[in-house]
Amino acid sequence: MGRKKAVVLSSGGIDSSTAMAVASDEGYEIYSLSFRYGQRHAVELGAASRVAEAMGAKEHLVMEINLGVFGGSALTADIDVPKGGKAADSGEIPVTYVPARNTVFLSYALAWAEVLEAFDIFIGVTAVDYSGYPDCRPEYIEAFEKMANLATKAAIEGKKIRIRAPLINLSKAEIIKLGLKLGVDYSLTHSCYDPTPDGAACGECDTCLLRLKGFREAGTRDPVRYK
Amino acid sequence: MGRKKAVVLSSGGIDSSTAMAVASDEGYEIYSLSFRYGQRHAVELGAASRVAEAMGAKEHLVMEINLGVFGGSALTADIDVPKGGKAADSGEIPVTYVPARNTVFLSYALAWAEVLEAFDIFIGVTAVDYSGYPDCRPEYIEAFEKMANLATKAAIEGKKIRIRAPLINLSKAEIIKLGLKLGVDYSLTHSCYDPTPDGAACGECDTCLLRLKGFREAGTRDPVRYK
Repeated sequence: MGRKKAVVLSSGGIDSSTAMAVASDEGYEIYSLSFRYGQRHAVELGAASRVAEAMGAKEHLVMEINLGVFGGSALTADIDVPKGGKAADSGEIPVTYVPARNTVFLSYALAWAEVLEAFDIFIGVTAVDYSGYPDCRPEYIEAFEKMANLATKAAIEGKKIRIRAPLINLSKAEIIKLGLKLGVDYSLTHSCYDPTPDGAACGECDTCLLRLKGFREAGTRDPVRYK
Repeated sequence: MGRKKAVVLSSGGIDSSTAMAVASDEGYEIYSLSFRYGQRHAVELGAASRVAEAMGAKEHLVMEINLGVFGGSALTADIDVPKGGKAADSGEIPVTYVPARNTVFLSYALAWAEVLEAFDIFIGVTAVDYSGYPDCRPEYIEAFEKMANLATKAAIEGKKIRIRAPLINLSKAEIIKLGLKLGVDYSLTHSCYDPTPDGAACGECDTCLLRLKGFREAGTRDPVRYK
């Protein structure tokens, strides 16, 4: 029997890259899973691939899914991305919300984990800073884990599947500090919802503002390129 | 406000077609959802489309997903389909099990329901007759429902999502009797895992045997064509 395996959901952003570093630091063999889900830009998939390679992932898989056919979000439909932090501050659910996104992603991770005989799935959600997404809350993660443990062969055979969300109680600055301690190269990551055609971050969308604030509070400089 | 909406998972088989008839009988506007998931044959998708049309579904959507990249099942990989009822009787998990299949399917249904503002998802699982699949048990359905009610905007807004499994305690014969009472035209359905090139059922695979037994016990004849 080899090293224990973990499926890690990766978007190429700060949070999932840090979650991957946590998994790697704990000794897991990494199976990185990303999605092309009808989003308007795919710069983040390049980042996810670079991060997986830099972290020595055993495999990096990009699933093609098409949540866009359902409509309903700025990330998959033709709605303007909010600028200037309005959505993040309002307490409302941001229009960048993709319906049931983490549920769909975790379901695929569960399917892959079952085939790999992996029992740990890492997801870089955080309930701090950006709490508009219902599927980033600890009670959601716990409920998914409970469901997963009723869904699969492994569960029937008495093996416990764990949905690991190691960042769930960390602020962006705390995540960045943790990642730097674990050696994450954040210059490889990408977060912007509205990058320039050559991949530079806009510096104005909610996720850029949150990222920049995180690096500022962590006392360091964001190494990615801004327009 | 129009009729209440339901997303119905449809495989074009007996169970999901009967579940759709239950939803229709309860007055729901039907949004039928099927999947092309790397299975070796797609006859069932034709059946799903015919059933949705016959039931007057408002919309019928086929999602392309590729569970095949994960491997691990006779339905998506190149493993012989078992014949002669061995898997069904052994108490073991059949090799036709697809990893996390119902979890992936229900996740997509949840995403579509969220966009449609539908709060009911129907799935034709049954825990009777063919209990090898962990994700056909009532405790699994309940756990998924609980998770769904933490995952979505609707949940945060206090609306309750229900995962409806109206057949879960019915035998195949009871399902068929219920469907006939509700006017299901079973000649439109398809169940066989190993059909001939022109779409006739093999009559020998586990699902054919189960289907034939169900019609026999229901005291009627299966209207589909066998080779």
